[in-house]
Order: sequence, then structure tokens, then C-alpha cells
Amino acid sequence: MKHLTIVKVGGKIVEEPESLKALLKEFSLIAGYKILVHGGGRSATQFCEKLGIQTTMIDGRRVTDAESLKVITMVYAGWVNKTIVAQMQALHIDAVGLTGADMNLILSARRPVQKIDYGYVGDVKEVNAPVLAELLEQGYVPVIAPVTHDGEGQLLNTNADTIAGEIAKALAFDFNIRLIYCFEKRGVLLDENDDDSVIPLLDKELFEKYKAEGIIQGGMLPKLENAFQALAAGVQEIIISRASEMNAGKGTFIKN
Amino acid sequence: MKHLTIVKVGGKIVEEPESLKALLKEFSLIAGYKILVHGGGRSATQFCEKLGIQTTMIDGRRVTDAESLKVITMVYAGWVNKTIVAQMQALHIDAVGLTGADMNLILSARRPVQKIDYGYVGDVKEVNAPVLAELLEQGYVPVIAPVTHDGEGQLLNTNADTIAGEIAKALAFDFNIRLIYCFEKRGVLLDENDDDSVIPLLDKELFEKYKAEGIIQGGMLPKLENAFQALAAGVQEIIISRASEMNAGKGTFIKN
Repeated sequence: MKHLTIVKVGGKIVEEPESLKALLKEFSLIAGYKILVHGGGRSATQFCEKLGIQTTMIDGRRVTDAESLKVITMVYAGWVNKTIVAQMQALHIDAVGLTGADMNLILSARRPVQKIDYGYVGDVKEVNAPVLAELLEQGYVPVIAPVTHDGEGQLLNTNADTIAGEIAKALAFDFNIRLIYCFEKRGVLLDENDDDSVIPLLDKELFEKYKAEGIIQGGMLPKLENAFQALAAGVQEIIISRASEMNAGKGTFIKN
Repeated sequence: MKHLTIVKVGGKIVEEPESLKALLKEFSLIAGYKILVHGGGRSATQFCEKLGIQTTMIDGRRVTDAESLKVITMVYAGWVNKTIVAQMQALHIDAVGLTGADMNLILSARRPVQKIDYGYVGDVKEVNAPVLAELLEQGYVPVIAPVTHDGEGQLLNTNADTIAGEIAKALAFDFNIRLIYCFEKRGVLLDENDDDSVIPLLDKELFEKYKAEGIIQGGMLPKLENAFQALAAGVQEIIISRASEMNAGKGTFIKN
């Protein structure tokens, strides 16, 4: 079976020229088919501030009103995405920068209002696996921005971790998939203040144990829950690693 | 030979929801292969103002410093491009929004500094005709933002009229091409204050005559010079028309 590596990066790594350059250099070393999924970090929030748009976060999640959606689309699908694509082209990677609306790649549904109205936030409904597979077969490297659409003309802000996981699941029938979540830390840590306390291997049982003990908590919980779901759906290998070490066999390996 | 329609739109048409909707409805009625090339109008300038970035125009052309390039890429390749793509998808047009960096579609060279340094402005060197032709054959409708790259990692602001003309020329070997420049006026006017004074047919001789008489002037001159070059390169038909009348056989037809 063909091998596909999906790398998810976010935050400061893609926003600062030096770290982006280092990241793309590492990415260029990956053999076989590959996809990059990126977030955008804090620059969207900074632009909102400059433009006088108030950013509301609930449990670490952005409430996306019409103005914020515009800024997110501009920053992530515009500047960050095209900067990555141009720099990949310079590394002779034939990149194509896409949102979920392009080629109808990722259809999502606006998150229903329960206690909280998150605004223009989309939950992934369907990944267009045949089209992604075709792009890969043709030699392109898709660079995916965390914006999707509802099929009725509405763009939606969508979590980049989730997009990476859903793409991995959708392509797991056709490819042997390695999914790498790049991270500022070196992996999942036993002690968040000790960068060397990386958990080398994490299976479901150990995850439940660390979760119960409060060792794994916060934003890492949904990331890991997504990871175990992706493994259950046939994804071969999931690694949480520092971007600069993604090819070094370091970080936390997630196993079922 | 296969028929391809290339539509170039810009300015207010793509920025206002109502006029964009009407435009895309017209565009959806075009049979056969099609490409949309868009500019972005004044919203980039407005964003620059809001962000405190000074816009310098020389002879109606924007001087693009690093900050302006960022805003242009955000607004044109981000917001305008993806808004168009999402709305096309809702009309069951399988659009894919691209810059010249994506799939290495349009390679350009930074304009050399002579009297004026235009900054990050690119002149088209090469259009990747085989890749565009392949997208069309696969059923996609490319939506092209006026941003290109130099192949060495630098994005460049590039005139959308020129991009439309260069794409037309590059694809003229494989397609019977109709190139439509959409415009706020109904065509090229004999009297700019009389909307009904559309010149129905303009050949090179008549163009030179009107040019000498000062009837055709300003921004229309480079547009028409581009048009005659495209005809000379094998493009079949060029029309300058109001967006709402692009399918009505109205406007100014340019002939060699």
C-alpha cells in the first residue's frame, strides 16, 4: 500500500519566517505522498485587535462572528497558506493551497447552538477522499487551511487538528498513513515543566490512566481523543512531536 | 477544438454581496470550460487604511511594499477568492481557488526598478498551460487571484487584466478562447458620459484612430493593447462588457 504522511502544524511555527523555513525544510525530507494541514496561531487575533474586532474565546475556542471569519479566512487561507505554498515551490515541492471549499474538499456543518453559539464554526461532515487521492497521485502536495464550507455558500472556521484527523481517516482505505501533530513541546509530557519527560509510547490504557491521574489534561485531551479515533479508523501511526524532530523518530507515539 | 471562456472581473463587483451573487449567476450560465480571474478592488486599500499602512499609487498603480503585499494576499487570495469559491460550490460549479504559486501556475519576475520601484509587483513570465488544461479537463473551474510567485519563495502582486490575457494566450493552442473583460461600463464608450455610446466592434485600425483622437484613453489603453496582443497570439474573441450582460452578446467586441 502507498505511504502517506499528514503533518499538522500550527501556532507560532507557521507565523515566524525562521521557524517556518525550518519546518518546511524538515517537511521536504519526508518521502512519499504528503499533506500539510496548518492553523494560523495568534496572528488572526492580532489582526482582529488592529481592526477593532473583539475576540471572544470560550474554553480556548474562538467564537467566530462574521468579521472574525473574514479575518481568519484572510490570514489562514490567504497569507499563511500562500506563504507556505510559495516557499514550498522554492523547495521544488509542487504545493497547492486549498480550503475545504476548493474542489469541495471538506464539507462541514455549522455547529448547532446549544449552550454556546460559536458562530461560523464548522464540524467536518465529509472529506472528499477521491479528490485528495487524485491530487497526491498527480504529484501535488496539498496544503490545507482550516476553513471549510457548508455547500450552501458559507465558509466556516474549522479546527485544524480535527481536519488533519478527518483527512487521515478518510484516506486510510487507500494509504498507509502516518499522522504527525507538530507541537511546541517535544511530545506528550509526564511533567509539563520538564521538556525531557516525553512519554515515548501511549496506548489507550495508559492514556486513560494518565487522564484519571490528571497528568494529561487541557487541550491535549481532545487532541489525543481524536488520535485514538483515527487509529480505530485504520490510521497506522500517530506521532506528537516537535516540528524540528518530526523525522527523527522522536516524540510520543500513539498506539491502540 | 474545445471552447474555453475566460472571464476577468474586478473592482466593486466582487466586493459587494449582491453584485457578486448576480455575477456568479451569469458566470454559471456559460457553457463549456471556464476560468474566472478576479481582482479585488478597493477593499485592500481600505484594509491598509484600517491597519495604518500607507498606500502609494503611481499612475493608478499600487506601490506594493511588504505590508501591502500581505494585505493584498489576505484580501484577494484569502477573502475574495474563497468567498467566490464557496458561492460557486453552492451553484454546483466545482471551483478551485488558486494563486500563481499554487501548482506553480504562474511564474513571474519582480518588476525591475527603473524610475520607480513598484515593490513586490510581478510581471508574468510563464503560465503553466498544461496544468490549467488538466484542471479544466477534470471538470474544475479555476478561480485565479492576482497574486503570483517568483519561484524562489516570493509572492508578487500581479495585475489581474494581465493574468487573464496571459492565461488566454497560453491556452490558445488547445482551446478556442473567448476572453471577457467585465467592466462597470457597458463596453468601450465613444463618450464616457454616455452609457449608450458603446463601440460595438473595435479593430486595430479603429483603435489607433480613437487613440489618436483621444477618445480612448487612460486605463482603457493598456487593457486594449493587451487585448490586441492576445488576439495576435491566437485568442479567438475578446469582449469588453458589463458583467450583467456578459452572456447577452452586448459590449465591445475586439477584432484584429
